[in-house]
Amino acid sequence: MEFKNFHFPQINSITPQDGVLKDRIESGRTGTIPASLAKSYETGRIDAFKLNWKKGDPDQPHFFWDSDVAKVLEGIANSLSLHPDKELEAEYDKIIDLIASAQQPDGYLNVYFTVVEPEQRWKKISETHELYCAGHLLEAAVAGYTLLGKRKFLDVMCRYIDYIDTVFGAEEGKLRGYPGHQELELALIRLYEVTGNKKYADLSKFFIDERGKEPHFYRDVQKHEPVYGLIEVQSHKPVREETKAVGHSVRAVYMYSAMADQARIYNDEELFNVCEKIYRNITGKRMYITGGIGSTFHGEAFTTDYDLSNGTSMYAESCAAIGLVRFAGRMFNITGDGKYVDTVERAIFNGILSGISLDGKKYFYTNYLEMDENYFPYNMGASERQPWFWCSCCPTNFCRFLPEMLQYCWSESDDEVTLNIPAATTFKSRFGEISVQSLYPYDGAVSVTVNADGKFKLSCRIPNWCKGATFLLNGEKQEIGAQNGFVTFDREWKKGDKIEYMLPMPVEVMRSNSKVTGNNGRIALMRGPLVYACETVDNPQGVANMIIPAEQEFKLAEAAGLPAGTVAITGSALYENKSEELYSSEPPTMTNGKFTAIPYALWQNRGKANMAVWIREK
Amino acid sequence: MEFKNFHFPQINSITPQDGVLKDRIESGRTGTIPASLAKSYETGRIDAFKLNWKKGDPDQPHFFWDSDVAKVLEGIANSLSLHPDKELEAEYDKIIDLIASAQQPDGYLNVYFTVVEPEQRWKKISETHELYCAGHLLEAAVAGYTLLGKRKFLDVMCRYIDYIDTVFGAEEGKLRGYPGHQELELALIRLYEVTGNKKYADLSKFFIDERGKEPHFYRDVQKHEPVYGLIEVQSHKPVREETKAVGHSVRAVYMYSAMADQARIYNDEELFNVCEKIYRNITGKRMYITGGIGSTFHGEAFTTDYDLSNGTSMYAESCAAIGLVRFAGRMFNITGDGKYVDTVERAIFNGILSGISLDGKKYFYTNYLEMDENYFPYNMGASERQPWFWCSCCPTNFCRFLPEMLQYCWSESDDEVTLNIPAATTFKSRFGEISVQSLYPYDGAVSVTVNADGKFKLSCRIPNWCKGATFLLNGEKQEIGAQNGFVTFDREWKKGDKIEYMLPMPVEVMRSNSKVTGNNGRIALMRGPLVYACETVDNPQGVANMIIPAEQEFKLAEAAGLPAGTVAITGSALYENKSEELYSSEPPTMTNGKFTAIPYALWQNRGKANMAVWIREK
Repeated sequence: MEFKNFHFPQINSITPQDGVLKDRIESGRTGTIPASLAKSYETGRIDAFKLNWKKGDPDQPHFFWDSDVAKVLEGIANSLSLHPDKELEAEYDKIIDLIASAQQPDGYLNVYFTVVEPEQRWKKISETHELYCAGHLLEAAVAGYTLLGKRKFLDVMCRYIDYIDTVFGAEEGKLRGYPGHQELELALIRLYEVTGNKKYADLSKFFIDERGKEPHFYRDVQKHEPVYGLIEVQSHKPVREETKAVGHSVRAVYMYSAMADQARIYNDEELFNVCEKIYRNITGKRMYITGGIGSTFHGEAFTTDYDLSNGTSMYAESCAAIGLVRFAGRMFNITGDGKYVDTVERAIFNGILSGISLDGKKYFYTNYLEMDENYFPYNMGASERQPWFWCSCCPTNFCRFLPEMLQYCWSESDDEVTLNIPAATTFKSRFGEISVQSLYPYDGAVSVTVNADGKFKLSCRIPNWCKGATFLLNGEKQEIGAQNGFVTFDREWKKGDKIEYMLPMPVEVMRSNSKVTGNNGRIALMRGPLVYACETVDNPQGVANMIIPAEQEFKLAEAAGLPAGTVAITGSALYENKSEELYSSEPPTMTNGKFTAIPYALWQNRGKANMAVWIREK
Repeated sequence: MEFKNFHFPQINSITPQDGVLKDRIESGRTGTIPASLAKSYETGRIDAFKLNWKKGDPDQPHFFWDSDVAKVLEGIANSLSLHPDKELEAEYDKIIDLIASAQQPDGYLNVYFTVVEPEQRWKKISETHELYCAGHLLEAAVAGYTLLGKRKFLDVMCRYIDYIDTVFGAEEGKLRGYPGHQELELALIRLYEVTGNKKYADLSKFFIDERGKEPHFYRDVQKHEPVYGLIEVQSHKPVREETKAVGHSVRAVYMYSAMADQARIYNDEELFNVCEKIYRNITGKRMYITGGIGSTFHGEAFTTDYDLSNGTSMYAESCAAIGLVRFAGRMFNITGDGKYVDTVERAIFNGILSGISLDGKKYFYTNYLEMDENYFPYNMGASERQPWFWCSCCPTNFCRFLPEMLQYCWSESDDEVTLNIPAATTFKSRFGEISVQSLYPYDGAVSVTVNADGKFKLSCRIPNWCKGATFLLNGEKQEIGAQNGFVTFDREWKKGDKIEYMLPMPVEVMRSNSKVTGNNGRIALMRGPLVYACETVDNPQGVANMIIPAEQEFKLAEAAGLPAGTVAITGSALYENKSEELYSSEPPTMTNGKFTAIPYALWQNRGKANMAVWIREK
């Protein structure tokens, strides 16, 4: 196959206009970043780079701490590129200086294995996050350089990576190991793309190709296996032999992202096909309707096909959905196929944005599809968003992801611009500025103004949920068929040209495959890309006993207590009144009533509540 | 309150006649006991008592091994008392000799802490099974003495317990500790009851009263806490302050059994009230319809009220249901209230007998209420019964429990005999022989023949599932109301007197409390005490997509491929045909069809299959 050569624009080439994305990015700037920075100081994560922790001191650095700081820094770089802020920039520079000061003479840069277990350097890579931390530091350094033009951190990281490159590799005398928590693999690709130095991509390729080979590096060489077994870290077999998404879900999608990058860079069709198989497995059998992945808290992992329980043992970690977006986005850039953007969009507007409160300051680590009084917390699960976690990967991932959402709205190649998600943004493309006006995702009316002259293709995505999209070009109706999920206008553009299109958004009654046994007899409501949920805030009669007749005329309404413009769905419902006994042969009675559903991503922004996405149908 | 003084008869005072109990006890004799004995040899559990294991040898004894051997021995004693067998008895005596030879000069008797970690004796009681093993060895010794008149093992164990009594206690210089896995507590009561020596009951009382007190023995004194925390072993607070069933479910119900015993022996109303609160919490909010308990594999534990998911993260361990029977049975003996027997009966005929194959040779550790292709195994979970487990508590518990079932059929006090479960048995009561003819649990027609003369009360239980029971005494219709779930005949009996009664058993459509969210929109069928399940063996169109109209005339049929007399339920069903997609807005279509349900306890006796107890209703 011939690979397309799309790439996502730099974050700062896109300006968010009004709407969900703008508001959320702003909440990241004013909420998530300051809060994460404060927590990183408070918990000692930042000061740990001073390397003065000693055995017996309190606040022993954890082996994942470096990554949290790195992710906050990457988030700051992303944010500063959109919204300069002298004070924040000074803070950023100060932390970079501190990190640089922690670099060892040989280039090594890791707090935990410098001060806590220095003798274990590279000896516990299967279940510590040594190389994972390197990956996040590297990503942060690349962002700082690319978006802010700051070179210092990148230089520090190049030294560190050059050192890592002397340690790991196929050559005699090097360790044939690979990260226990994948991340460095995709970071190395970013470094290759910014430096053009192929050796960085080659190291990433080594890490992927070596993974799971025999003799096994963890089991046979280091004799130090991950706690949940080799499958947990996707090293139970060579990745090219994999057909399903398995193991720790964040590790998995980070790795698949790197694999997709490598497929593109090395024009490796075999590897692409592996990615495609896994992608199909995820989206066809192992993904919640919200785009959440990882059906169990136990190892934060994928389980089996169609095991998508709504119980509290589910996981759907925020970071995993973020990783899925990165994987799917990369697959789009290789293929130009809109189906991948369908997944990107599903995850962003549902299972990712659900992970963060509207003010940007509280987070779900696990994104439940149902919440009840009988909630039983596993692992990082909580019934209300939390301001921080012991393992705080999700908050810090939001620091960087909120601005990153802009990148998924557009993509471009040598001769084409694709409008992937028509939220209100302005994009400075290589062909000139293109701007979108819309109330998307709450409304399907989209107006695109091309402020550019010249010949290029402009492609507008028709989401898979959409039937009957209509297009006007400069006011004239167009009859163009969609290909690969896009309607393409290939023409000589003149400044002021306008595409107006409509993606009809009726309320859709969704059902799961019968094999998702817990959802049988239940429906979920969607409108456009949004999955809806019922919360007791709007439905005081309860959600567990609610029954929604699938055939009815649903109505739209302004959602109470949520940001202006948020569209709620209302309709008639029945409420079942059953015996108070645990089990009873008394037939239940029904009470007629109404229901109000709000976008799932916005639940638990008006206090603690019960909630359900999958509601019993009549 | 005034406590009743019922007690369960000795196993060998009851003879099973035809039917489910007889067949199952026979499968224990011919299947479970020989298989468990063989496995106990094969895995080294028995030979471990030779104490010749040394560091570096294979098959290191596990700290729970002693208990497995003890449970097989107790099962053999139970079985031999019903069915003498010279060869088996010789084997039994040989193992007793071996165990006796492992006793240390000071009386100590534990393989693991003699050969593997001798220096850790009593130092790891929070999370090893040191005192638990003592309990099982003691129970086995008591059974051997009581049922077979064999004294040697009892003497050995009395020496061991006398030694333990010098180690643990409130007196200066003794350890104020208590078992990490409860079991010894109830065994000590049995020892007290067989010896009349109150100090054994007092030691049990000490273990219960000390539990959870501050300073905390595990946390503060030994500084060695259980892996899932203090709550896992019910030591997070003094047991008298507890109102709910929490922590590891087997530990919990074993402890509640001992607490009920102590309430009775010490006439301790406060402790009884604690037991009653916990009992109500279990049966009213934390028990599967099958009598299974423990909603999560994670720590094999109770979770929260109404958290009774059918997903594979559920647990419902066979041993936990067995323990629940023991707890509920003891509560019955204190109160004479039939409600406790309702639980005993529910658990035996459903969530316990489901744990063992009809041939007695394979076991479920976890008793799922639903099985699908998307089964994901946690911990000891399996989609098919297994011949043994690494942690093989359930098979060995079945060795002893199958004969023990007889005890729950009858109880007696100074002036009364209660017929608790009217399965076909003959009971040599203190007043003379009483025999029951019935096809129970498959038919509610019961005929009781009293082969005794004299005045005593004979009480027949009216199960809580039964409406409209009718009674004949020597052919004459009786109008006696039930009290505490029993109809009592208080009269001068003559040999040959006959009570005939009928417990009508229509098919009942059961629903869960609305708070059990996963069961909303679903029904379970029951008939008499039996919970039914649909298996793909009988329903090739599938069970996950099956819909049963709740209002229909259900029919009874002979169950195919199951023991003669097994009653199946049949009726009409719909089968939902949904899109093959994971999520779809295409409305499903329906196919009309039939369904066949079999007793839940018998599922997976005809090969691997999908199964569901809770079926979607129309």
